[in-house]
Amino acid sequence: MNIDDAVTGHTLSDIPKLRILLSIPAAEFNAFIPAATRTALDELGHVTSIAPSDLQSPGAFARAAFDADVFITAWGFPKLDADRLSLAPNLRCVIHAASSLHALVSDDFWATGIPVSQAGAAMAPAVAELSLAFTLNLLRRINRLDHGLRNGETWDGTRNIRRAREICGARIGVVGASRTGRRYIQACQALGADVRIYDPYVQESDPLAALSTDLESLFATSDVIAVHAPSTPETTGLIGASHLALLPDGAGFINTARSTIVDMDALYTEVSSGRLDAALDVFDLEPLPADDRWRSLPNALLTPHLGGATANSRRRAGLIVVDELRRFLGGLPMEHALTRTDLEKMG
Amino acid sequence: MNIDDAVTGHTLSDIPKLRILLSIPAAEFNAFIPAATRTALDELGHVTSIAPSDLQSPGAFARAAFDADVFITAWGFPKLDADRLSLAPNLRCVIHAASSLHALVSDDFWATGIPVSQAGAAMAPAVAELSLAFTLNLLRRINRLDHGLRNGETWDGTRNIRRAREICGARIGVVGASRTGRRYIQACQALGADVRIYDPYVQESDPLAALSTDLESLFATSDVIAVHAPSTPETTGLIGASHLALLPDGAGFINTARSTIVDMDALYTEVSSGRLDAALDVFDLEPLPADDRWRSLPNALLTPHLGGATANSRRRAGLIVVDELRRFLGGLPMEHALTRTDLEKMG
Repeated sequence: MNIDDAVTGHTLSDIPKLRILLSIPAAEFNAFIPAATRTALDELGHVTSIAPSDLQSPGAFARAAFDADVFITAWGFPKLDADRLSLAPNLRCVIHAASSLHALVSDDFWATGIPVSQAGAAMAPAVAELSLAFTLNLLRRINRLDHGLRNGETWDGTRNIRRAREICGARIGVVGASRTGRRYIQACQALGADVRIYDPYVQESDPLAALSTDLESLFATSDVIAVHAPSTPETTGLIGASHLALLPDGAGFINTARSTIVDMDALYTEVSSGRLDAALDVFDLEPLPADDRWRSLPNALLTPHLGGATANSRRRAGLIVVDELRRFLGGLPMEHALTRTDLEKMG
Repeated sequence: MNIDDAVTGHTLSDIPKLRILLSIPAAEFNAFIPAATRTALDELGHVTSIAPSDLQSPGAFARAAFDADVFITAWGFPKLDADRLSLAPNLRCVIHAASSLHALVSDDFWATGIPVSQAGAAMAPAVAELSLAFTLNLLRRINRLDHGLRNGETWDGTRNIRRAREICGARIGVVGASRTGRRYIQACQALGADVRIYDPYVQESDPLAALSTDLESLFATSDVIAVHAPSTPETTGLIGASHLALLPDGAGFINTARSTIVDMDALYTEVSSGRLDAALDVFDLEPLPADDRWRSLPNALLTPHLGGATANSRRRAGLIVVDELRRFLGGLPMEHALTRTDLEKMG
């Protein structure tokens, strides 16, 4: 019998603790929730960890969800529609350790008024760094050189490509002064690049306003274009053949955001002709089919939509979850809470 | 008749001007000597421009060199041995627009005491940026992902590689605090990396001294190693199998300096096993043969020794040549003049 027993007549474990359903895919669990993060979560409530793959049937979901106050999710969690919500009568808060909420929330969910937060902020530095890596690759033609040497081209043949350029002094055009775009701009400027942006939502008081220009001028005067805009109805097809045609010969086009923003057929035409080079993390069809046209261009650099996926970003996402949970428990608004309207603007 | 005629009785063109033999390979001429640089040279003397390929025969060389005060060279210029020097009786200064002097100078040349300068400083930022690009590629496994997607691997197959890491917070070990190494360190630190160095010649008063460690510790605690040491007898074979074995699993090894510094067989063993990734601009055999073993490793990123070759570095080299020529004309020591001893230390 300890002091608590003496005073209250019951043990601490009898006091209702927050019940947390933690559901992160097994392959990513340790990346999101390393030991220190798990300890922090355990201090905030009673954590039950079940992989999303084990929550697909309504029965399994009901057993796990019936007394949960909080869901912590990532990918593969069942969509929170009326049926699922009826199986989680105590649910008061959802914290999503990944970015996109589209597969998780529903009209029914928004109608409940339950607050939902997400950890997209964790990914911005990772995406910005991939975009920076793409930038250096295209300016230096590294992918062309590497692809040439790997495909049996002669040493001198590969060396006879268009002259490489340094990022210091390069003209870099950024479409979208998003959280990711701003990190990318910072990094490029730290390396001496001459950055211009297109973003109609940048306010006059924003330091980036001084870098703003219209979309046509941006394309006409950039050695590299990097897309960091959200995918929304307004940005769908924003960049078309007429913009790409304005880019100088030999310019590079980078997309680590979403393919919907770009006319990918027009881009393919410019890249397959050799006039432009491209580095792409996002595609119209994901997963990219084995025989996709993009896979064989010598001057395209491809990665499989992993811009936000670093060891660092996963760890940061877990820490954001802990912070958000602390705020919720303290009665404070969560820092990364989103409304339905926010989500529509974010894409 | 102008004022000069009135005063001196002869025209300006009668006053002996410095005679400059400008010999830059045709393919690179405009990169090194754009119009503004040519104008600056023309103001400093009487410039005769002849491609080095047209100076190979002693007769052609003699006709071009017999009255030249200054040679401005890059690649392919005849080696300045006793025979060639005897054909250039007026030679007083050599300015090399490229970096390595080994193919240009000789024992006979050093015996003349003619000052020689070179534009290696122009290349340091270019090499440092390539090394930075390599760093981001290896940390993010971009080359593995790209090679996978280009070789028909499935989307999910390529995504299932070892987790990518960000440069912000990454442990980067630099072998050699050379001019290039210092630019690379600056860039990595600007992006948040945790840099350590190995360089036995760094003085205690040097700000980099605080980052110094021994070679073994550097390898044992780095996510990426970047080689920026000169190729000298002292650095030949500096990095061997025992050092590479100290690198953590999944670490990256970058060489944009010279292959002689590294046991390339030992490196190949580590990279072909998949334990380490590598990004290489330099090789034991250059040009790299068509069937070279390095060309087919999925986790090796290759470029054909173009680290210093950017449009920017060529332009800077031309400007250094003009500056050095101005110093020579003004009776000042050239800023990048090298002695035989300097050359031996530089490799």
